[in-house]
Amino acid sequence: MAVSWEESVEHSINTIYLLFSAYLVFVMQLGFAMLCAGSVRAKNAMNIMLTNVVDAVVGSLSYYLFGFAFAFGQSNPFIGTDFFALKDIPNSTYQYSFFLYQWAFAIAVAGITSGSIAERTQFSAYLVFSFFLSGFVYPVVVHWLWSSNGWLSASSSLLLFGSGAIDFAGSGVVHLVGGVAGLWGSFIEGPRVGRFDVFGKALPMRGHNATLVVLGTFLLWFGWFGFNPGSFDKILVAYQSTTDQGNWTAVGRTAVTTMLAGSTAGIVTLFCRRLLVGHWDALDVCNGVLGGFVAITSGCSVVEPWAAVVCGFFAALVLIGLNILALKLQFDDPLEATQLHGGCGAWGLIFTGLFANEEFVIQAYDSGKSGIARPYGLLMGGGWGLFGAQLIELLVIVGWVSVTMGPLFYILHKLGLLRISADEEIAGLDISSHGGYAYAQSEENRPRYTDYLRMQEEQSMTK
Amino acid sequence: MAVSWEESVEHSINTIYLLFSAYLVFVMQLGFAMLCAGSVRAKNAMNIMLTNVVDAVVGSLSYYLFGFAFAFGQSNPFIGTDFFALKDIPNSTYQYSFFLYQWAFAIAVAGITSGSIAERTQFSAYLVFSFFLSGFVYPVVVHWLWSSNGWLSASSSLLLFGSGAIDFAGSGVVHLVGGVAGLWGSFIEGPRVGRFDVFGKALPMRGHNATLVVLGTFLLWFGWFGFNPGSFDKILVAYQSTTDQGNWTAVGRTAVTTMLAGSTAGIVTLFCRRLLVGHWDALDVCNGVLGGFVAITSGCSVVEPWAAVVCGFFAALVLIGLNILALKLQFDDPLEATQLHGGCGAWGLIFTGLFANEEFVIQAYDSGKSGIARPYGLLMGGGWGLFGAQLIELLVIVGWVSVTMGPLFYILHKLGLLRISADEEIAGLDISSHGGYAYAQSEENRPRYTDYLRMQEEQSMTK
Amino acid sequence: MAVSWEESVEHSINTIYLLFSAYLVFVMQLGFAMLCAGSVRAKNAMNIMLTNVVDAVVGSLSYYLFGFAFAFGQSNPFIGTDFFALKDIPNSTYQYSFFLYQWAFAIAVAGITSGSIAERTQFSAYLVFSFFLSGFVYPVVVHWLWSSNGWLSASSSLLLFGSGAIDFAGSGVVHLVGGVAGLWGSFIEGPRVGRFDVFGKALPMRGHNATLVVLGTFLLWFGWFGFNPGSFDKILVAYQSTTDQGNWTAVGRTAVTTMLAGSTAGIVTLFCRRLLVGHWDALDVCNGVLGGFVAITSGCSVVEPWAAVVCGFFAALVLIGLNILALKLQFDDPLEATQLHGGCGAWGLIFTGLFANEEFVIQAYDSGKSGIARPYGLLMGGGWGLFGAQLIELLVIVGWVSVTMGPLFYILHKLGLLRISADEEIAGLDISSHGGYAYAQSEENRPRYTDYLRMQEEQSMTK
Repeated sequence: MAVSWEESVEHSINTIYLLFSAYLVFVMQLGFAMLCAGSVRAKNAMNIMLTNVVDAVVGSLSYYLFGFAFAFGQSNPFIGTDFFALKDIPNSTYQYSFFLYQWAFAIAVAGITSGSIAERTQFSAYLVFSFFLSGFVYPVVVHWLWSSNGWLSASSSLLLFGSGAIDFAGSGVVHLVGGVAGLWGSFIEGPRVGRFDVFGKALPMRGHNATLVVLGTFLLWFGWFGFNPGSFDKILVAYQSTTDQGNWTAVGRTAVTTMLAGSTAGIVTLFCRRLLVGHWDALDVCNGVLGGFVAITSGCSVVEPWAAVVCGFFAALVLIGLNILALKLQFDDPLEATQLHGGCGAWGLIFTGLFANEEFVIQAYDSGKSGIARPYGLLMGGGWGLFGAQLIELLVIVGWVSVTMGPLFYILHKLGLLRISADEEIAGLDISSHGGYAYAQSEENRPRYTDYLRMQEEQSMTK
Repeated sequence: MAVSWEESVEHSINTIYLLFSAYLVFVMQLGFAMLCAGSVRAKNAMNIMLTNVVDAVVGSLSYYLFGFAFAFGQSNPFIGTDFFALKDIPNSTYQYSFFLYQWAFAIAVAGITSGSIAERTQFSAYLVFSFFLSGFVYPVVVHWLWSSNGWLSASSSLLLFGSGAIDFAGSGVVHLVGGVAGLWGSFIEGPRVGRFDVFGKALPMRGHNATLVVLGTFLLWFGWFGFNPGSFDKILVAYQSTTDQGNWTAVGRTAVTTMLAGSTAGIVTLFCRRLLVGHWDALDVCNGVLGGFVAITSGCSVVEPWAAVVCGFFAALVLIGLNILALKLQFDDPLEATQLHGGCGAWGLIFTGLFANEEFVIQAYDSGKSGIARPYGLLMGGGWGLFGAQLIELLVIVGWVSVTMGPLFYILHKLGLLRISADEEIAGLDISSHGGYAYAQSEENRPRYTDYLRMQEEQSMTK
Repeated sequence: MAVSWEESVEHSINTIYLLFSAYLVFVMQLGFAMLCAGSVRAKNAMNIMLTNVVDAVVGSLSYYLFGFAFAFGQSNPFIGTDFFALKDIPNSTYQYSFFLYQWAFAIAVAGITSGSIAERTQFSAYLVFSFFLSGFVYPVVVHWLWSSNGWLSASSSLLLFGSGAIDFAGSGVVHLVGGVAGLWGSFIEGPRVGRFDVFGKALPMRGHNATLVVLGTFLLWFGWFGFNPGSFDKILVAYQSTTDQGNWTAVGRTAVTTMLAGSTAGIVTLFCRRLLVGHWDALDVCNGVLGGFVAITSGCSVVEPWAAVVCGFFAALVLIGLNILALKLQFDDPLEATQLHGGCGAWGLIFTGLFANEEFVIQAYDSGKSGIARPYGLLMGGGWGLFGAQLIELLVIVGWVSVTMGPLFYILHKLGLLRISADEEIAGLDISSHGGYAYAQSEENRPRYTDYLRMQEEQSMTK
């Protein structure tokens, strides 16, 4: 006996929505690759792109084998233990399309962290940390926040503080996790050779290709339309409390809040940086836009458009401030991933606790049912329940990632497996670990590094 | 009381269709950025990419605050005054997804013009013109053509000449507007330093990266599938006059006509340029393809596939002819935006007046109702009504953009705010206004060719 | 009388699904262009990108005029003769969206072959072979496998060996066809000048831009989500044999098998190449991923996720092995297209014959009807019927493409129209045939920053 026509229609509509959203989220992997490539020096471009490709391919297998199980298995509030290697998938709760959507999120996390430790990390260390982060550390956080029985979830039966934390598409789950991991990696590795002079003054260390940065930023923007509105999972959900609205309304609003937060952050960054550094800086605007996206990702579905503008405004200030602080502290994160994904991600969690709209919370977390009451944004009169849960999420993510990733990086460091040698760093990872530079400019015009070494040798011999 | 299941299904289907189309249109912003970047010299790449990013972020806020209100507010046939800052959105007519779709169009317009004035315009002047164009000049034209009570609209109750102008996805509303603005900007600024020698002969001034041009062209092609077929807004509309067709048929046909017009224009350009310049020119083919897309954009939904081939054929000739004329007149538009978006956009409006198919017009503008009669293509036997309305649209757009943007550029010019100094132009905008070049080739790591020669010299001397 | 609401909903859902899948497949054209551009030397970048653009524009017209007719016309089992120039489209079987989807496949084929003959082929020869391949050779194979009355089709009434060959999205139809054509082209042209030294030892001939290779790979991955899951054509098909599944389940599973095969092949390549060449090679991983995709394309809809991992594992070995063999045989295919699309495509056909799952075959080819029995994977206990049909497909494709494309390339070769002269090859195709290099670094136009500082200094001194 086949499924009814009505159910077939619902499944088809929701599957189209989720699958194409998943494809968009996947584009973010490409966006990251381009953003990272453009932001590092040419001699490390091959390395950082390989890490992005490896995040995708290794993450695919590890998420298939156990990551998804840890995240969405239903055994207890802390970690899942069902669905290893897609066992019992599909079922009435989880379709393949849901797995694919979550997979696209999982492979993004390690990409964030790869930016923080760029240009100086051994590739084998990268393989270890990437596997551990996307295969274990991240899925556990997902379980807490997004699985139906996670202890911090806003849609479980537990509802911490009667609310649960609202992290709709993952300012905390994805970006803060990646950013905190990056903080530890970057801190333990220390700055790149030549990043700060002996007086602690930062020396410019520009990425090699601004076009790639812009390309990456726009691709991430494109992908974020899958990341945020897509997180509703289903579009065909009608709201009891209205006469003409449903998730189809909310997904549009979510795309709008996303776009407004990113744009506002971009504008604020443009003008602030003009005041601070004296020129119109395209790359800072790109990072500003991304900071706005990271911040709105938590509350995108539950705030009004004007609040998204507020979110983006402060996200830009957070990013600019943390970047100044990082320079002062001689902290070197080549992609600003700690500041951007960590800082703006943390601000996003708090923002949601302040500005979540009552009606929209019920729409996003109770399918718009009538007669429901639950905490919402503190500044909107919704009490401390949600705000408290948001703070808890912020604290436990920082704690959990620190106690897992911190020791991992430290052990790798102590074993001499984390950072490449200064010689290799100066020569560049591409020539030392990956068989050659990313760019070959027609042999006749550009002497290769080996030629260069040989010539130096010859010179020294002739002296 | 919630919305019925049937309505939920309709809303969901139409929202998916419109939202994902909006995402595709957004990709065009990236496409433009890459196309523009590749078409200018390396020293101005950062500048032109920043303008594209700024179009997006500034356009987002201005369209949110008032652009959408001017365009789709319903007060009178000339300019709208409802919906500022999304007030009263969503309503039964306009959902968030519609706003997002229109936003993606709005941010594209200034990008077109930015090509015309590339490589020589002060960034602050850019901010002013971009804000004015996408926040006011463009939305007013949208109101005339696309709002339900616009005086030129083909779906309003006014129906100029019993027809209204058919500009389905905006050969006129988007491309001609951007092109005419570019014409004035480029004309008032004058050619780039060194573009023409003292005898008026054009000197080659190649863009720095053809790969980016091809990347941009294909991304624009991809995005155009959102631009043209997406302009139906709803896919779930059945036609009374047929037994098995509806908008789902017409959107497919629209994608096909779009693809055929662009492809034909590309082929014609390939062979014509081969005859004219003696080699197979990839970049001209790219522009030819885009010219075909611009031209079909007006009539994409109302012409048959064979007519799209005709459209593309002449679009290529229009573009080639205008480019020759521009050289003769010493008119310098670095991206050919005036010729391409202005020229082919104008041809598109006329083409629709000549070739619109009766049945398809009723499908696109009266939901395929039976028993409707309205003017259609002149050459198809549909009388002068539509052709006249198309001519009126062409004239009023040229006029309106000229009387608004012309004076704006002229005032900026007179105040010395429009063009950069010759010194800055020779040095490049990136170093003078944006803090550095787009490409950093890490001097310390990669020996330059001249160093190589010098070392060889030294070696030979020491022997 | 209009179509019923239910049918409107079905048409709308299926059209959205197929159209957006078609758009994704189109992105593969861009992916190919970038992959090819990055994989050749800078002096031929313009040429190879032009071939990709030309595949699209020429393929559009030829597929519109007769390619689609040859492929899906219904006259006989060997070649179609209806629907020239979209005559009688749309009809109850084929909508415009189906044409668009198939068009996106057709333009991809010549792109595969263009990689094999890159860097040494006359552009006019390219025009001839591209037109012949995508306009005739490929559509005929499509007719055999994918049209409802093709003699090898798994959904026709003929069902060779009671089964027909299962080539769901075209490991054979698309990739093997392109790969075999490339084999002949590349073999007849011979290796590039300087590829092998006088002792037959291969000399490194690196592509000029690894970033473009990674960009292209990810874009192809993105597009493959349209290529494989999209090949269901319709998403709204319920399965009689289950209570909650339909094509909406299978499309998700297909996306998952696709992703797993590509990822596995990428990982295997990463580690194998590390063992073989001693470094972590990003470009090889990219090719490995693509090899996995090519292999799974035939069986993506009919195998379980674990089998996809097996598929990818061996695809990587096939690719690595064939690359070693190619070096030994002094066979020079600049993009490895013969090995990748030909070799992994062939493996894909065999793999499906070994691992196809009974239930999934009935879902994909009989809409999940109950009470159907048909051959499936040999190793799954499904007998020799399917495996035999897969072998037949493999043989007839190799044969058909060889007897058509082989002579074509040979005649062009004999007429001196195929390969460029050694002088032109050394100078590069871009300067000899396309009017200039892809990258203009125009020293005359771009003063370096140090020059700029010196100029300022000089200026200040003269004051």
